[in-house]
Amino acid sequence: MLTAQEKKHLATLIASRPPNHSLPGGFYSEEFVYRYELEAIWRRGWLFVGHTCEIPQPGDYVTFAVGDDSLIVIRGDDGKINALWNFCRHRGTQLCDAASGRAGRLVCPYHQWTYARDGSLVSCRGMHEDIRKEELGLLPAAVRQVAGLIYVSLAENPPDFDAAYEVIDCVARPQGLERAKVAKIVDYEVAANWKIVWENNRECYHCNVNHPQYIKANFDHYNADDASERIKERIAAQVARSEAKWAAAGLAVSHHHTGMVQFPDAERNCWYAANRTALVEGYVSETMTGQQVAPLMGDYTDADVGTMRIRTLPNMWHHASCDHAVSTRLLPAGLHRTAVRVTWLVHEDAVEGRDYQLQDIMPFWQLTSEQDWELCVHAQRGVSSSRYIPGPLSTYKEYNVDAFLRWYLHQLK
Amino acid sequence: MLTAQEKKHLATLIASRPPNHSLPGGFYSEEFVYRYELEAIWRRGWLFVGHTCEIPQPGDYVTFAVGDDSLIVIRGDDGKINALWNFCRHRGTQLCDAASGRAGRLVCPYHQWTYARDGSLVSCRGMHEDIRKEELGLLPAAVRQVAGLIYVSLAENPPDFDAAYEVIDCVARPQGLERAKVAKIVDYEVAANWKIVWENNRECYHCNVNHPQYIKANFDHYNADDASERIKERIAAQVARSEAKWAAAGLAVSHHHTGMVQFPDAERNCWYAANRTALVEGYVSETMTGQQVAPLMGDYTDADVGTMRIRTLPNMWHHASCDHAVSTRLLPAGLHRTAVRVTWLVHEDAVEGRDYQLQDIMPFWQLTSEQDWELCVHAQRGVSSSRYIPGPLSTYKEYNVDAFLRWYLHQLK
Amino acid sequence: MLTAQEKKHLATLIASRPPNHSLPGGFYSEEFVYRYELEAIWRRGWLFVGHTCEIPQPGDYVTFAVGDDSLIVIRGDDGKINALWNFCRHRGTQLCDAASGRAGRLVCPYHQWTYARDGSLVSCRGMHEDIRKEELGLLPAAVRQVAGLIYVSLAENPPDFDAAYEVIDCVARPQGLERAKVAKIVDYEVAANWKIVWENNRECYHCNVNHPQYIKANFDHYNADDASERIKERIAAQVARSEAKWAAAGLAVSHHHTGMVQFPDAERNCWYAANRTALVEGYVSETMTGQQVAPLMGDYTDADVGTMRIRTLPNMWHHASCDHAVSTRLLPAGLHRTAVRVTWLVHEDAVEGRDYQLQDIMPFWQLTSEQDWELCVHAQRGVSSSRYIPGPLSTYKEYNVDAFLRWYLHQLK
Repeated sequence: MLTAQEKKHLATLIASRPPNHSLPGGFYSEEFVYRYELEAIWRRGWLFVGHTCEIPQPGDYVTFAVGDDSLIVIRGDDGKINALWNFCRHRGTQLCDAASGRAGRLVCPYHQWTYARDGSLVSCRGMHEDIRKEELGLLPAAVRQVAGLIYVSLAENPPDFDAAYEVIDCVARPQGLERAKVAKIVDYEVAANWKIVWENNRECYHCNVNHPQYIKANFDHYNADDASERIKERIAAQVARSEAKWAAAGLAVSHHHTGMVQFPDAERNCWYAANRTALVEGYVSETMTGQQVAPLMGDYTDADVGTMRIRTLPNMWHHASCDHAVSTRLLPAGLHRTAVRVTWLVHEDAVEGRDYQLQDIMPFWQLTSEQDWELCVHAQRGVSSSRYIPGPLSTYKEYNVDAFLRWYLHQLK
Repeated sequence: MLTAQEKKHLATLIASRPPNHSLPGGFYSEEFVYRYELEAIWRRGWLFVGHTCEIPQPGDYVTFAVGDDSLIVIRGDDGKINALWNFCRHRGTQLCDAASGRAGRLVCPYHQWTYARDGSLVSCRGMHEDIRKEELGLLPAAVRQVAGLIYVSLAENPPDFDAAYEVIDCVARPQGLERAKVAKIVDYEVAANWKIVWENNRECYHCNVNHPQYIKANFDHYNADDASERIKERIAAQVARSEAKWAAAGLAVSHHHTGMVQFPDAERNCWYAANRTALVEGYVSETMTGQQVAPLMGDYTDADVGTMRIRTLPNMWHHASCDHAVSTRLLPAGLHRTAVRVTWLVHEDAVEGRDYQLQDIMPFWQLTSEQDWELCVHAQRGVSSSRYIPGPLSTYKEYNVDAFLRWYLHQLK
Repeated sequence: MLTAQEKKHLATLIASRPPNHSLPGGFYSEEFVYRYELEAIWRRGWLFVGHTCEIPQPGDYVTFAVGDDSLIVIRGDDGKINALWNFCRHRGTQLCDAASGRAGRLVCPYHQWTYARDGSLVSCRGMHEDIRKEELGLLPAAVRQVAGLIYVSLAENPPDFDAAYEVIDCVARPQGLERAKVAKIVDYEVAANWKIVWENNRECYHCNVNHPQYIKANFDHYNADDASERIKERIAAQVARSEAKWAAAGLAVSHHHTGMVQFPDAERNCWYAANRTALVEGYVSETMTGQQVAPLMGDYTDADVGTMRIRTLPNMWHHASCDHAVSTRLLPAGLHRTAVRVTWLVHEDAVEGRDYQLQDIMPFWQLTSEQDWELCVHAQRGVSSSRYIPGPLSTYKEYNVDAFLRWYLHQLK
């Protein structure tokens, strides 16, 4: 993919980053870096697609596009989910252009080559007799599901998923995401490179001023430098109380930190994390009031379950409260453009208007998201300057930005 | 134009096509391939511009743009058609921006350099005395006309036109396109590479499901694999009856095939073809009803003349019935974009509303065109995938797609 | 910035220009040339930003963007003007996105790093203790002002400004631009390369037909070839009369030419010029009627002061009459796009509706500007043709186009 000159240029760029500083500008403004990221990260790793509850029945499908690549993620006759490259094996025509739907068979609009839900070629009227139909099924892509989340990989040899499965399944299982339903999807296009969106996600240094609703519910913005003894005691008490309660309820807890969990782990190339985190006293849900606003999800019998959080690089984070869950999915849409989908889920039996109101479950994360996109756009504008130089990351508050950048640079090698 | 690296990349791409398969993806997604096509095909061959009846009088002109190149195609004082590069020889300013018009002289809007209709520089007030006006006429481009069709070449040394002239003139002459008038022009922008539009045109494998109106009037979609003995006999009878009648009327027939004529001929590098083809029994015009809907054109004295068809690579096909003619002109408008103009012509004396209705002459080819553009868009989306691989072409039904692709690859060498 | 291949290509392009001809097409259509111009010209020379009267008080600022680079031009507590790179030294976030405003301190919206009006870092709550605040002030850019005009340079080592200061200050001082106010700003985007806009500005060959209002007020369009003896005498008389009067009033005159002053001086690499030029008899202002339409500006006690003109490459020209001044600022906005801002100024005490009407002060230069942009668009279209070849420049009328092109080529070396 890269020319010899580009490889050299990339190596120079990588070497030019001062430790614990933001990235040099070329990472945000060179087209060849973006092209290489598509290859080395987006067409290699595991990508979050959506929720199993979006395709409950055989034949239900969603399409999933990354750059010019499109997959059909469809539930087969056996109930298993298949990921199929969305082009006909005849002359390459895209089969499905709908975002979602239900299909008995996948029929190419051009010459009606017809494929079963597992991708096998069923008929191709008009072709010569010696065609090898068994070799002309839709190309499969790797697909895995865990606790109601669907992941695919565009790679022919995808990395291991099992370790991620164990961690996520253990923490997320009680949330009952398979027994959820989508309450709302909001799509955004953010005028910023995808890395800038992650950098934003990986610290709460910006929360105090920019996310007033978020910091009422969470302790994330406290760090060693600005948490007084009184606050530290308060957090410790709330965490201890919460974790004791969760342990009694059989809910897994992956860590004992306050504030933001360390993620990712660049040294061990760990792209996934899941944990349960205590909310501020008096909060049982990430809502504007902190109150429960929808029926309990999954296995929960008590609202006091904190937030169940999942992050998977390069494209997903997830915060679930007792009564609703919110996933955020990123997709690169150009050097300076990221497509973001935020999805709100509730219990599958909950009825809008009767059991919950969108105006209650949405604002907390809609505000947080939109406040962040605005910051990302400003960050992109600044790092595009020809004179921009990397600045220092706070060792108190931006250790996870540094971790993300080290993980990122590791992928390029 | 191409760097050494690009040349090597192109040779690899060409070599990577399996015989009788669709093209590898790079041909549809690499900018350098598109750039090279502009040079090797679009700035070398003969391009269909429009109809002589669009510029009947001296001074009548149309402008014709291919990428950033623009020509003025203007009828001179001697009645001959001139093709002139549309930029002033002073500082390069574009002279005409109208799509068509009538001009006494061509006057540059910037400094009023003034050119005659043959491109010679008549005046350039303000220049120093020793300027060589005779060397500063508008640059001429090669132009030819045949049976009412205007062709230009952007090449300094264009390929032979005479052989094409003979074939087209012989078949098209009775249609009387010089004595026609434009009834309607519809312009499209199709989000697909120009080759995909040709591939679509070169087979009727897709007709059965996608073009219900077309297959009622034509036999094109029948091939050796799906024409029963009864159908073969029926076609043979209709062809024999038609050709006998045409021979009696002095109308040339270039071939005796049913279905689609073989075109192009890659081995002999033949970029043109013309023939007269029988319509289905009961059809005398490519209209929704098959009935004649406008006055007979040209030399015809009987409606039963089948369809007169012309194709010239890289940018034109044409279907004429007894009462109207339809030309389709392609122009590349980007790697993934093709500008298409469909023009309907009728006899020059026909009066809209009295002698014909647009709603009668247009739907057949408007539907066929728009159905095809939709398919082309889907084809483009699919072949843009990073995992797309060429698929097999039906030896029964896509021999002309293969012929087109071989012709195309031949041009790149 | 340029690859070895691009450097070679540029040298070939430069060598391919015939003397006293327009530029070869590559200068207008090759992206790498444009990229190199940004580096060699736009990020090296002095760029006109705006008027000191736009930021009269400490804390008043305007932002100024060239391509992806943005500066904050802000008046400091000491009254001096500072130019600061518009990105935070933390993670590069753009600080100001408003076009103008007043700021006590510059606070980054992301993590609230806070800078004084001189760019020094005042606070960065949340960072680790050993951060070196004194090294993390906003990066300064070179800034100069002369006679109410603000210039910046994006270069770390900008070229000399002092000589330009002397010339401009001497001629412009009496206009009183520091005691002016902005009456109107109009922004344009012209679909032409920035050099085409300058070429247009550097000759009045096109004026006769395209600028009827301009040639009523000015002698610029007369040249040695088309000024009759009677006209030459008339111009000489008017110039002599005017210059005598100005000398008596203490107004500097930099030259004794009629018509367009020679500019630029490529051989001495002179990028600035200023002079006072006589208007046609009966004209005291560049207005549609030639009459004074606003209060006298600056030190003027008499309306009969001709026009005070300033030009600075690569981005500004200015025509001031006794009662109003008009500056034109260019900024490159892409290979085929130039952002132009035209600003009208009047005396700071003049009140719209009472002392002047926009409909009186604006049309003369609004018409002239818009007429020119239209011509530039046509010029761009023509020189984009693959067959465009440079044409001869009139030695009578386009000596300054040639001078501009020689200056331009000099910058690329």
